[in-house]
Amino acid sequence: MSVDKRLHERKFVRTFFTTPTAEQGEDDSAKKLRSAIGLRGMQAPDVWVPDNEDATAPNMRDEGAENIADVVAEDGEEFPGEIHPRVVWHRDSPQTRYKGFQHMLEIADPENGAVENIDGFVIPEVGDLDDWKKADEFMTIVENEYGLEEGSLAMSVIIESGTAELEMGRLRDEIGKPSNNLERMFLLVDGEVDYTKDMRAITPTGALPEWKELRHNTSRAASAAGLIAVDGPFDDIRDVAGYRQRMTENQAMGQLGIWSLTPGQVVEANKAPLPPKEGYWLIDEDGEEVELDAEDGVQQYVGDKISLEADGDEYHLTVGNDTQVLSHDELQTELVDLTAYVPSLDDIVDSMEEFEAAKEAGKGAIAMTRATTVSIDGVEVDISSDRMWDEATYQALQTPITLFQDVYDNRPDQHDDLAELYGEDVVNRANEVGN
Amino acid sequence: MSVDKRLHERKFVRTFFTTPTAEQGEDDSAKKLRSAIGLRGMQAPDVWVPDNEDATAPNMRDEGAENIADVVAEDGEEFPGEIHPRVVWHRDSPQTRYKGFQHMLEIADPENGAVENIDGFVIPEVGDLDDWKKADEFMTIVENEYGLEEGSLAMSVIIESGTAELEMGRLRDEIGKPSNNLERMFLLVDGEVDYTKDMRAITPTGALPEWKELRHNTSRAASAAGLIAVDGPFDDIRDVAGYRQRMTENQAMGQLGIWSLTPGQVVEANKAPLPPKEGYWLIDEDGEEVELDAEDGVQQYVGDKISLEADGDEYHLTVGNDTQVLSHDELQTELVDLTAYVPSLDDIVDSMEEFEAAKEAGKGAIAMTRATTVSIDGVEVDISSDRMWDEATYQALQTPITLFQDVYDNRPDQHDDLAELYGEDVVNRANEVGN
Amino acid sequence: MSVDKRLHERKFVRTFFTTPTAEQGEDDSAKKLRSAIGLRGMQAPDVWVPDNEDATAPNMRDEGAENIADVVAEDGEEFPGEIHPRVVWHRDSPQTRYKGFQHMLEIADPENGAVENIDGFVIPEVGDLDDWKKADEFMTIVENEYGLEEGSLAMSVIIESGTAELEMGRLRDEIGKPSNNLERMFLLVDGEVDYTKDMRAITPTGALPEWKELRHNTSRAASAAGLIAVDGPFDDIRDVAGYRQRMTENQAMGQLGIWSLTPGQVVEANKAPLPPKEGYWLIDEDGEEVELDAEDGVQQYVGDKISLEADGDEYHLTVGNDTQVLSHDELQTELVDLTAYVPSLDDIVDSMEEFEAAKEAGKGAIAMTRATTVSIDGVEVDISSDRMWDEATYQALQTPITLFQDVYDNRPDQHDDLAELYGEDVVNRANEVGN
Repeated sequence: MSVDKRLHERKFVRTFFTTPTAEQGEDDSAKKLRSAIGLRGMQAPDVWVPDNEDATAPNMRDEGAENIADVVAEDGEEFPGEIHPRVVWHRDSPQTRYKGFQHMLEIADPENGAVENIDGFVIPEVGDLDDWKKADEFMTIVENEYGLEEGSLAMSVIIESGTAELEMGRLRDEIGKPSNNLERMFLLVDGEVDYTKDMRAITPTGALPEWKELRHNTSRAASAAGLIAVDGPFDDIRDVAGYRQRMTENQAMGQLGIWSLTPGQVVEANKAPLPPKEGYWLIDEDGEEVELDAEDGVQQYVGDKISLEADGDEYHLTVGNDTQVLSHDELQTELVDLTAYVPSLDDIVDSMEEFEAAKEAGKGAIAMTRATTVSIDGVEVDISSDRMWDEATYQALQTPITLFQDVYDNRPDQHDDLAELYGEDVVNRANEVGN
Repeated sequence: MSVDKRLHERKFVRTFFTTPTAEQGEDDSAKKLRSAIGLRGMQAPDVWVPDNEDATAPNMRDEGAENIADVVAEDGEEFPGEIHPRVVWHRDSPQTRYKGFQHMLEIADPENGAVENIDGFVIPEVGDLDDWKKADEFMTIVENEYGLEEGSLAMSVIIESGTAELEMGRLRDEIGKPSNNLERMFLLVDGEVDYTKDMRAITPTGALPEWKELRHNTSRAASAAGLIAVDGPFDDIRDVAGYRQRMTENQAMGQLGIWSLTPGQVVEANKAPLPPKEGYWLIDEDGEEVELDAEDGVQQYVGDKISLEADGDEYHLTVGNDTQVLSHDELQTELVDLTAYVPSLDDIVDSMEEFEAAKEAGKGAIAMTRATTVSIDGVEVDISSDRMWDEATYQALQTPITLFQDVYDNRPDQHDDLAELYGEDVVNRANEVGN
Repeated sequence: MSVDKRLHERKFVRTFFTTPTAEQGEDDSAKKLRSAIGLRGMQAPDVWVPDNEDATAPNMRDEGAENIADVVAEDGEEFPGEIHPRVVWHRDSPQTRYKGFQHMLEIADPENGAVENIDGFVIPEVGDLDDWKKADEFMTIVENEYGLEEGSLAMSVIIESGTAELEMGRLRDEIGKPSNNLERMFLLVDGEVDYTKDMRAITPTGALPEWKELRHNTSRAASAAGLIAVDGPFDDIRDVAGYRQRMTENQAMGQLGIWSLTPGQVVEANKAPLPPKEGYWLIDEDGEEVELDAEDGVQQYVGDKISLEADGDEYHLTVGNDTQVLSHDELQTELVDLTAYVPSLDDIVDSMEEFEAAKEAGKGAIAMTRATTVSIDGVEVDISSDRMWDEATYQALQTPITLFQDVYDNRPDQHDDLAELYGEDVVNRANEVGN
């Protein structure tokens, strides 16, 4: 088998939502697990992770494993996402690894009735690939003991060491070897807090470093090995704008999933990689992109960093400190350069359908035109720009649609939300296009 | 053989210019190829790529291969750059790879009369090194069939997958093994559109992500394997300033070549890595570097983010929102820090000659002095700074000269342009220095 | 043995200070070496590197090796840091490598009396790991010839080629193999000048590129192989602010050490990774973090990019061009987001002690509260924020303390400086906490 033969269905994972599994007072802990497994629709994550590692106190983890089994046995059947408990593990501690093995044996024990709804396990603190293989072997033993198909339990890892960062780039060479079942690999999840410790990094305020290279390397390794890249937790749960900003950055690196700490973050993260309901225009305001206000088809600029004045046949356009005197044609060209359009789901489907029709008519490339009227300081200017689409453009821009279709297929509980957000018609067309 | 034994002459490639090879209507397609092969001087690229992949419709590619052979047979002898057709290839499709092999057999067939002027082939969409080796093997068979020396056809690849990005870092270990002819390797070209698809990255406007890590890794792999790194296409062909900006960024990563889509882009890209005709001064204007206006040896600042006022023996210097009160000496120190000089070709040759003379006289390090007068708000200040040059500085700053010499040796058709740009005298000295 | 069995004591190295070893006129050269070996306290580096490569003229290096042996024999015993001479080496030159071997034999010759105080050697210009192993082998021979324990001489390398950058990521796999003694590995030092040459990078002014990816990769390789990452030289020795800025960036990548060219740079670099004496607040001034002025426990903002006005129950807060009208609660939330606290050593020790006490009391996570009063345009607002600390937070934030303790253990000559800087009490508590 090879990296193209991954055993698990989801091709995209937007949300990775962790919940503590045991606390002082049995009622409380079961309550949090039951609350999480009861989530539905946009509040329910693609992957739910009952967390029997960091989120649960060390002396409560045996109880945590039992709680997971209990709650999943009761309510796992109805949960709309996948369930992947995180067990304890450490590349430097055989004791911890053995505990993790025991917890997997406990959670997957058929007598506990949970295993039909356990999709896999999350292994933190991995090191070399030889360490990953130890976890893989334990899962193979669990599968064998309990009569499950080899490789049927997915394995996700948390990348929280320089060693694991290096090793994930070699994973493609190891998947499919006869002595392992690494086809079970599923998610590569960044864990920036422990990674910061392992890298011995320091910031003045104790804020986490950006770790852009780690995120790129995780996304690249996921691409090479047919896996899914997920970013680590965003601690400041009140900072919704910051969380969105982080996801926009991640998406531009190919990291479409993110860890969520609250149902509120789950909602944000489930929506983030989906195109907007309505398209809108951006303008580059001296280095920063801001949204234009759409009014009756006219895009109004309301900031004070760009100004425009008509003077007979000439126009004075000022951006920041630079003023240019331009003809009407030059002004149009300049505004085309300064602006950009964020297409809606509907727009993307339109463009794809248009390209598909052209391809059927034998054309390899067509120009997609985007036109609007921009208004700055009361001066209105019509602009229009062409973008060449060829097969490569089509395929590169297809990613949000493929994700949309993956969500639609795997998350029937979100059908109503999607229909309400986009309208039935757009949802239906988005499900058809590109197939 | 090893990575030091590369078989191909060019040590630098500035431009990689692609042309479609076949369209509906035979006249048209041959016309575009003939127009490209007729380019000379700064409009002619270092590497011309008749593109029988993305730029040519799938059902026209057999005809495209024939067109390449025809046009190169007729006019290839006079073309001043190298000719490397791009054939079809895909790591996931044996059918596409076989097509690519057939097109190489067609283009290189001695009966078509083109092969003497075919320098190599460009292979897109490669995956693992084992996939690169399949293309290498097909070229070995082509060479053997047609009585060409093994390895004489260069092989360039387009990096457009996470897998290829990872694998190029291992190339150094494979070149020179007895079972391949990878000494034929020539260019590592980034292909960001398909790479974006492979990484499943999303941006709101559909603009390409920056992919800085990819560009670094390509440059590094080229350095390690003795190859040449080339950046992918810059789509907005009207945006000359943006194209230049991209090249400046690339050059700071060691990626001195770039893909060109039009003869206009070829001109820009051929000139971009060469030093300017005239040196000029920059000043750091609260985080952004802007050029000073040179007038009679005085460097005038004309923006409004820096202001300077003399007050008796003191000076009030304001940069952005920060005002400092400084003595004349402190002011000079501050202005030395804020300014930087961009040397001309002439300046670089001067400095290298000066260092060489010092070395001959037994000195390991000398101070290079740079002095001028800066004028801000009418206040003129003389500044002067020293930079220590040792052997390492000398060698690191030699790169633009080495590139200049490579261009001069390989592109006689650009001699007139260079002489016109820099003057005969500077051109001659630039060809002598450092040898 | 494995990467966990490194043979050398220092776990952190802040400073890597190079000194030329020979010049025309014997007095001069010995004088510079004697001056360097006489440094103490904050002026003395963690690692002193008598530089018999770039800093010494090629024809003076035999004399340089003798000078090193002489000076270290005389004064090495009292030097408070480690001593690691840099010898000549080049991946492409067997002649240079043989010279380096001869210089190691000379410097370590017991008859010269220096070897007891030679901690290891620095090898520049390395290439593939096979090249690193040649240097390792020479050190093994030196150790064997002179009756030293195998592996007792540390080996540090300068990363100044794309090849070495790639190869250091594979080091973990090689350390501990029976045919080498790579457990002697100690520092991975970036050498950006020669790296720039090797990557053939160009910048307009000849300034060094940023090479962020190189620094990340060096830090990661150090993490994976149990080594220490050190950044290269910062040329502009007058630019103290720039040097500090570079170190802050490096620290956020896990690169806690830096090359120093002067005793002044050594002082800066020895202090840079240590927490400040007094904590202070930062505010995000439209994208740039600036320090607030503390007066009687109130944090005053004195810039002009943020303004605040009270209007009855409402507040008008302007940051850059954005004005928001906020209630008192909303204003507090907004100011919590805009501000950040840089903790002092004392603060960090307090927080760690608090978390340790909580852990002993059975709590896995506690909220750390940080409160102050912020004053903008005369309007004072009390703010307070909580940060959740769990075991992972505790360990990630422990790095500066671990470094402090490593410094304290290894550098008795800095005890007075530390006591003067922080006070005896804080120093004592910092030495206790976390053990």
